[in-house]
Amino acid sequence: MTAQQPKPRPEEAPSRPAFATWLGGTNEITRMFLAAGKVPGLINMAGGLPEPETYPVKELAEIAERAVSKYPQESLNYPPIEGLPDLRDRLAARFSNADLRLSRENVLVTSGGMQALDLIGKVLLNEGALIAAQSPTYLGAVDAWRPRRPSYRLFSPDRNDFDPVAALTGAQFAYTVPNFSNPTGRLVGLARRLELVDAAHQTGTWLVEDDPYGALYYDGTPLPRMITLSGAKQSGEIYSGPLVYMGTFSKEIAPGFRIGWVIASPDMIGALTIAKQGSDMCTSGLSQRVAVDALDAGLLERTLPVILDVYRHRRDALCAAMDEHLSEWFDWEKPVGGMFVWATAKNPAMDTDKLLSEALKAGVCVSPSSVFDPHGEDRRSIRINFTLNTPDKLAEGIRRLATATQAIGLD
Amino acid sequence: MTAQQPKPRPEEAPSRPAFATWLGGTNEITRMFLAAGKVPGLINMAGGLPEPETYPVKELAEIAERAVSKYPQESLNYPPIEGLPDLRDRLAARFSNADLRLSRENVLVTSGGMQALDLIGKVLLNEGALIAAQSPTYLGAVDAWRPRRPSYRLFSPDRNDFDPVAALTGAQFAYTVPNFSNPTGRLVGLARRLELVDAAHQTGTWLVEDDPYGALYYDGTPLPRMITLSGAKQSGEIYSGPLVYMGTFSKEIAPGFRIGWVIASPDMIGALTIAKQGSDMCTSGLSQRVAVDALDAGLLERTLPVILDVYRHRRDALCAAMDEHLSEWFDWEKPVGGMFVWATAKNPAMDTDKLLSEALKAGVCVSPSSVFDPHGEDRRSIRINFTLNTPDKLAEGIRRLATATQAIGLD
Repeated sequence: MTAQQPKPRPEEAPSRPAFATWLGGTNEITRMFLAAGKVPGLINMAGGLPEPETYPVKELAEIAERAVSKYPQESLNYPPIEGLPDLRDRLAARFSNADLRLSRENVLVTSGGMQALDLIGKVLLNEGALIAAQSPTYLGAVDAWRPRRPSYRLFSPDRNDFDPVAALTGAQFAYTVPNFSNPTGRLVGLARRLELVDAAHQTGTWLVEDDPYGALYYDGTPLPRMITLSGAKQSGEIYSGPLVYMGTFSKEIAPGFRIGWVIASPDMIGALTIAKQGSDMCTSGLSQRVAVDALDAGLLERTLPVILDVYRHRRDALCAAMDEHLSEWFDWEKPVGGMFVWATAKNPAMDTDKLLSEALKAGVCVSPSSVFDPHGEDRRSIRINFTLNTPDKLAEGIRRLATATQAIGLD
Repeated sequence: MTAQQPKPRPEEAPSRPAFATWLGGTNEITRMFLAAGKVPGLINMAGGLPEPETYPVKELAEIAERAVSKYPQESLNYPPIEGLPDLRDRLAARFSNADLRLSRENVLVTSGGMQALDLIGKVLLNEGALIAAQSPTYLGAVDAWRPRRPSYRLFSPDRNDFDPVAALTGAQFAYTVPNFSNPTGRLVGLARRLELVDAAHQTGTWLVEDDPYGALYYDGTPLPRMITLSGAKQSGEIYSGPLVYMGTFSKEIAPGFRIGWVIASPDMIGALTIAKQGSDMCTSGLSQRVAVDALDAGLLERTLPVILDVYRHRRDALCAAMDEHLSEWFDWEKPVGGMFVWATAKNPAMDTDKLLSEALKAGVCVSPSSVFDPHGEDRRSIRINFTLNTPDKLAEGIRRLATATQAIGLD
């Protein structure tokens, strides 16, 4: 019906409105990483992906069937914005303990851990607001907050002169990954956890405890969560302190369901819920119902030992290969858990952005430190993932990385 | 381990950082609506919920089982940010026609239609930017864009003096719901669609075509989509025009999967993908794989006639009850499709915010027009949903609404 209309020639087309300013500041490295898995022969040690062989496929298929056939009202309708009551209750029970009293009102279900970061940014950041962030900082968090164009104060709990009150004062929130930090794989020790919690109570600043790897301890006893340490400072009613705890099933069962959660004071949960309403209305009812049934069936308890065995073995294989091939150029600590080893060049002239392009030519991909610095300046380190590849592949990847490092031509 | 630390008394607690400014401007009516379904005896005609009896539970349960057991890589892993390639291809094929050439690069899978609105706001709105919006405006869109604190220019394609070029010029984008507008249930006619598309091509302004109800035509022949009219103005390559088309499976199969999509030029899809990366990383692989298999199994074709029969019958029942009980106070048009009837008070002194509180006392819930006005001023109309309740319930709801209207005491 419009065939008779003249078609404008391309040069007549008017220009479109500009995209929002923050888009000019993005890097596309995470997307490159997710896509890199499809380059033939490339050994991808850049991402943070789980090993699909650990997924309990048969049980999850049965649970998915039952979630729809037995609970169609929950799995097929719009769930409440905050999440299915059953799932919120299970999560409240899971994280409650003698020091931390939680109820459903303390829990928001999110569409993966990434959405929790987006929502925290939405409710706490006016344009240009100040974030105190553990350095180096998870790339995805920097991405999530970019549309709010925040400013950053970076802090390092690893440093001897770390001053938690100075770090937190005046910031809208402080962001930490205390268990096996992304990217460094390091733990924030108990003393520092206590100091950070005290500083949050003293300053009032929200303290975000992002904990995707908290179940992935390969050695030793898990340290207490900071939200538990904060709960111990409060008696009586349900938790109302300054900690904002985030978790996800992506690393414990499988990421494809996109189920994460926030545990925090009810006023924070209320604010996040308003933000979630305008973000995706609610998280998939099917995924939420599967999560409830997976918890009730004890699937986490059965799956986790399998995951831990596979990942512990791979960590050891990676570190052995690094000892053999990379120790001339890099320093690192063997991590106690998580998914990553963080290696820092002995030579401060190293530019790991350049190393990445050499590495891609050599057939291996790792993450350069620049993407974990909100200011984009750190070029001395790399993050190496050990969960996705077999020990043989990890060793070959490290040999390729050594070739690439040699090609850079630094002493 | 912290038991020896003194617990600060509540009055010593420092104040927390303020929430972001936009949160002060939210209303919680959508959330009230979702929760209202649980008030005993209340007849909820306020929301926009589908009738769960229409969900093809048995087939979806089988599809969910197969999605996990047969496609674990797709359903359990992180899918690509843009969506599963199979789903993007199916959607490109579904919306392609002689005038509109689409490929995978034109398609972004979103976590429901709401996420598409959030992402459009993220990529196009700096703080305070101008949106041209069809008035009255979908409440969820206003909610989604609130964190960007936009300004609004409202336009009414129903008016004789509607000037589409004036409406669009200088705005970042224009927002429309041309099929059975939420809230009015009206169609934007073919002539106005052509004018809007021409204005978008002439001004360059992005034209957002939000189409959740496009399949819900109860009478007559569907009008062409504006993106198709725009495609007819372009020859050769895949679509690169100013239309941004949004759809969802929520109204055609079931909302619990949270699968929506955007169809637009590849540069817009690229920008939205960067925003999605920082919003939820990716949409549930399980939900996406279920959507692919539901499409391939012909589930939409089998389910849609059932839905249309149920909803057509309910629309007729609602309008009959309104004729009997409300015609003294309200004017309305019987809608050709969609989920809503929009009724406007004959008396301009009507305040439908007040009517809502009377209605709740009388045991019925409808949506007042104030929530569909970004400026919050329109108090003369109500939106009545007819898809969720049986004909008997609809009639009883309208009787209660008449009681409430009588109680307001206007002529």
